[in-house]
Amino acid sequence: MRLFWTPASPFTRKVSVALMETGLWDGVEIVRTTWSLDWGYRTTAFTPGLAEANPVARIPTLVTEAGAALGCSTLACQHVDALSGGRLTPADPWPMWSLYAVADGMLEAQILMRAELLRPAEYRMESFLDKQRDRIRRCLDHIEAHAGELRTGAEGGPPNLAEITVGVACGYQDWRDWLDDFRPGRPKLARWHDAFAERPSMRATAPAETPEA
Amino acid sequence: MRLFWTPASPFTRKVSVALMETGLWDGVEIVRTTWSLDWGYRTTAFTPGLAEANPVARIPTLVTEAGAALGCSTLACQHVDALSGGRLTPADPWPMWSLYAVADGMLEAQILMRAELLRPAEYRMESFLDKQRDRIRRCLDHIEAHAGELRTGAEGGPPNLAEITVGVACGYQDWRDWLDDFRPGRPKLARWHDAFAERPSMRATAPAETPEA
Repeated sequence: MRLFWTPASPFTRKVSVALMETGLWDGVEIVRTTWSLDWGYRTTAFTPGLAEANPVARIPTLVTEAGAALGCSTLACQHVDALSGGRLTPADPWPMWSLYAVADGMLEAQILMRAELLRPAEYRMESFLDKQRDRIRRCLDHIEAHAGELRTGAEGGPPNLAEITVGVACGYQDWRDWLDDFRPGRPKLARWHDAFAERPSMRATAPAETPEA
Repeated sequence: MRLFWTPASPFTRKVSVALMETGLWDGVEIVRTTWSLDWGYRTTAFTPGLAEANPVARIPTLVTEAGAALGCSTLACQHVDALSGGRLTPADPWPMWSLYAVADGMLEAQILMRAELLRPAEYRMESFLDKQRDRIRRCLDHIEAHAGELRTGAEGGPPNLAEITVGVACGYQDWRDWLDDFRPGRPKLARWHDAFAERPSMRATAPAETPEA
């Protein structure tokens, strides 16, 4: 398998954590991508091979052993889950997918804010940033209300894809100084994240800025 | 099941077509949503029940019989597929998901353009629109090169989720006058779409503007 990767993308981190938690990471060829800082509002030069594999030209893109390029992080996670024999999803997966979609909606809001902040200042809209902040707040409140579904890891086995995505969303919230601390008013999520962030897969994928070239 | 819906959203159309093609549409409670035209850059008043079901507050949101809200059109389509016994996905699904992700990336580019065009003119970036147009062009060229994977329907049974998504992406391209005709230079896709667009599920879901209130 081949993964088009950067250390800054939370969508990519989600796939990386899934690969590590299932023991598949070491067999994956990692293609480090670079992104010019105007990626959010201009067609920029792509890392060689990316647009050829996936015309959306987005990361993560996971190319399977059989050569199918999965240019959507949810599908890439599902492929990893299938390879692991379903270890990242419970028998009735739909409540988990419901929580996953909320956490994934947080990732999207975070990246939309990042792209907005990279625009030249005169084209930035504060109301757009507020819309995404409002969305993130609603999602975090929902996750706090459902924190009982987040397992601590004491039961053994890998986390499920909702837990991975909640962990990554909280981690991104911590990493970017223009995002709020998710902990005030959300004690259950805060406690859960303290433990989850210590998993080797999470420590090994701590976010860092993407190289521009 | 309950589906938060509008006739303008191609992501919602994809789920609606999947429900119709599997005979499940008639059992779904459709919640017609309204959106103020500043939805793209401001938190607007949501249709009652939407943000409570899905804090991302986005359409489509499919609420399953068991009450799991799926606020991601890919997961909603997968739920419909599971209910139908897998009639919308082939036995080896990954090549299909690869093509699906490309068509779904087109939908995202289309909606990003829509949101950009709804911004006050002074905040719009032509280079952002060009970036999305470039993405759509690359995706359409990829789909033309893979048009042999798109079946005509003569084999019977419902289309798969990649075919549905390609059909919806082309349909959106036709609907919005600020998007280019996808046909020039893509004769195979043009021929396939001529036939696909005549399916009852596609005719029943022709796009229309979302009511503002």
